[in-house]
Amino acid sequence: MERMYRDRLKLVKDIFRLYEIDAGIVLAGPNMFYLSGYTASTYERLLCLFIPTYTDEVFVIAPKLEGERITENIGIDPEIILYRDHENPIHILSHLIHRYKVGVLGIEGCTPYRYINGIEESIGRIVFKIIDEHLMGMRVTKSEKEISYIRKAAEINVEAIISGLSHLSEGVSERFLSNYIREKAFELGADDVPFTIVQSGPNTSKPHERAGDRSIKKGDPILFDIGVAYRGYVSDITRTVVYGEPSKMHTKVFDIVKRAQARALEAIRPGIAAREIDERARNVIESEGFGKYFIHRTGHGIGIEVHEEPYITSENEVRLSKGMVFTVEPGIYLPGKFGIRIEDDIAVTKSGHEILTIIPKSLYVRDYGV
Amino acid sequence: MERMYRDRLKLVKDIFRLYEIDAGIVLAGPNMFYLSGYTASTYERLLCLFIPTYTDEVFVIAPKLEGERITENIGIDPEIILYRDHENPIHILSHLIHRYKVGVLGIEGCTPYRYINGIEESIGRIVFKIIDEHLMGMRVTKSEKEISYIRKAAEINVEAIISGLSHLSEGVSERFLSNYIREKAFELGADDVPFTIVQSGPNTSKPHERAGDRSIKKGDPILFDIGVAYRGYVSDITRTVVYGEPSKMHTKVFDIVKRAQARALEAIRPGIAAREIDERARNVIESEGFGKYFIHRTGHGIGIEVHEEPYITSENEVRLSKGMVFTVEPGIYLPGKFGIRIEDDIAVTKSGHEILTIIPKSLYVRDYGV
Repeated sequence: MERMYRDRLKLVKDIFRLYEIDAGIVLAGPNMFYLSGYTASTYERLLCLFIPTYTDEVFVIAPKLEGERITENIGIDPEIILYRDHENPIHILSHLIHRYKVGVLGIEGCTPYRYINGIEESIGRIVFKIIDEHLMGMRVTKSEKEISYIRKAAEINVEAIISGLSHLSEGVSERFLSNYIREKAFELGADDVPFTIVQSGPNTSKPHERAGDRSIKKGDPILFDIGVAYRGYVSDITRTVVYGEPSKMHTKVFDIVKRAQARALEAIRPGIAAREIDERARNVIESEGFGKYFIHRTGHGIGIEVHEEPYITSENEVRLSKGMVFTVEPGIYLPGKFGIRIEDDIAVTKSGHEILTIIPKSLYVRDYGV
Repeated sequence: MERMYRDRLKLVKDIFRLYEIDAGIVLAGPNMFYLSGYTASTYERLLCLFIPTYTDEVFVIAPKLEGERITENIGIDPEIILYRDHENPIHILSHLIHRYKVGVLGIEGCTPYRYINGIEESIGRIVFKIIDEHLMGMRVTKSEKEISYIRKAAEINVEAIISGLSHLSEGVSERFLSNYIREKAFELGADDVPFTIVQSGPNTSKPHERAGDRSIKKGDPILFDIGVAYRGYVSDITRTVVYGEPSKMHTKVFDIVKRAQARALEAIRPGIAAREIDERARNVIESEGFGKYFIHRTGHGIGIEVHEEPYITSENEVRLSKGMVFTVEPGIYLPGKFGIRIEDDIAVTKSGHEILTIIPKSLYVRDYGV
């Protein structure tokens, strides 16, 4: 078992003990990856860790066809229980719950109700406790190694965006640019490219809509929002440029967003509340009269997930601390017209912060060196 | 409101009435798409339909930043309730549950436990009933229109695979082929390409592992498992070929898999049990002594989801009926050596079946006309 995973599992069991949780189930996904170095998408088939609190054991329950891959890739040394398609894995879980006399079972908030229901029907009375905050509490502080993965993901992301910018031309479609950036990121060593949003013209006013068939025309704003993963850790960058000459309105809005972001960035250091970072960006945009067009939070944590803690919202009182990594991405969206967003990835350091995404901020394509 | 969606919503409410469910919550995903023509991925943000049983109303609860897109794309005429990032959408849901005096709430089995928990904490005593089988019961019988979308998705899929085959050459990577097929499918009009699995050499013995960096060498078996969506409906095709000359073992295993599939296909007609289709394929493989290397079910339904009912397993007693659409995909996987799978998409017709995936079955690339 790799030391890192052993330490994490030990800490999880310590937390379970403290909160009187007798065992935990962690489903395929970010927490399973964090605790074991392994996860997989098995569609509707159950894949999970079963973690009894009071012994050193850990179990993996998996579909038979995952068998070979697990032993090759997992970073821990679990007992692996494989089931075939006609077997019900809830019975395996219930059997373990019974064997370990589990009265309080830790589960993730994302656990589908059908599993809860299946366990209740099979076991009878049992108390479920959501363990997300405990796991996220561990994950929110990144180690040097984890930050180095995000930094590397950001480097790949930057290079992929810049090579996308070099392919801007009259008539090229959003989808072409999106696919091109995706393939480029893989070529550069990404192990996943969870999204490559490219929007142009009025599409930029709809945050998070993905690339479509629209072709680029002179004077279009173009928004790139690209997610790249390296060794399981994500970088998330947005840049907005204009193909050709920006209008006065483009420039005005861009400058406000850039200023809002700068105000937020400069304050990032241990001890400041997440809420204050949001406020700083929001105040700039509101004071310019665009408050109602900044329709989302200022940022979100990144790590194994694209969106995780800490959330940079107007309500989040959490104080930033060393090792937290998150985006700062104010935006202004004028419905039917255009939208501008600028997004960077920041790590909180001992006395301030490090910007992990080193890439120009400009409406002019030429400023990106292409 | 489009007629098709109005009819579906009416039927859902009739079913709720019959089962004494006072309202239902349908989350962003396949059921929401089926009932409204709209869905979206909003990460951890709640997006759902709220369907009161005893009135004609229907609600969409959505993050503010989805606002513009919903009204443009949704096929029904709901009351839309938007929330901002600092607002808790569970409070909106709880408010509606209270307003409509809901005692029994229908939810999907995939509903995250955190929502259940949030509603319970806010409302107190309420009974949850899983509605998946009711919704799937509607979705499992495809209309002519739905089948026409899958047929079109299959046409695109076939063309994409064949163009992938034409790019097989010494040294080309799995990932290149995977990306190439993906881009080709989009070019051909796919609206989504959920997976483009390309495996080569010993990787073919691990079902569902995605494309990697491995380069293709003479004598390699290569497995393509490609999913293509058109208007929201999926086609799922697998073909295995050998680059260069197949070995005797390749040919032997391929012929068994092909024969197993043929035995299964010929029996498909209304009235036969899903289990019998599985048995027919499994019997061929077992009688040749490869039973323990056929480590998954024979097939699964396709439609809005890649895996849905009817499942073609050794346990499923469901009788096939007109309008059901599913895959038939026996496979043999020799660990560390190679695997062969052949997968087609079938629609059950009034008196037999239609194979929606018209593409050769051969180990020889030349037989695909490239």
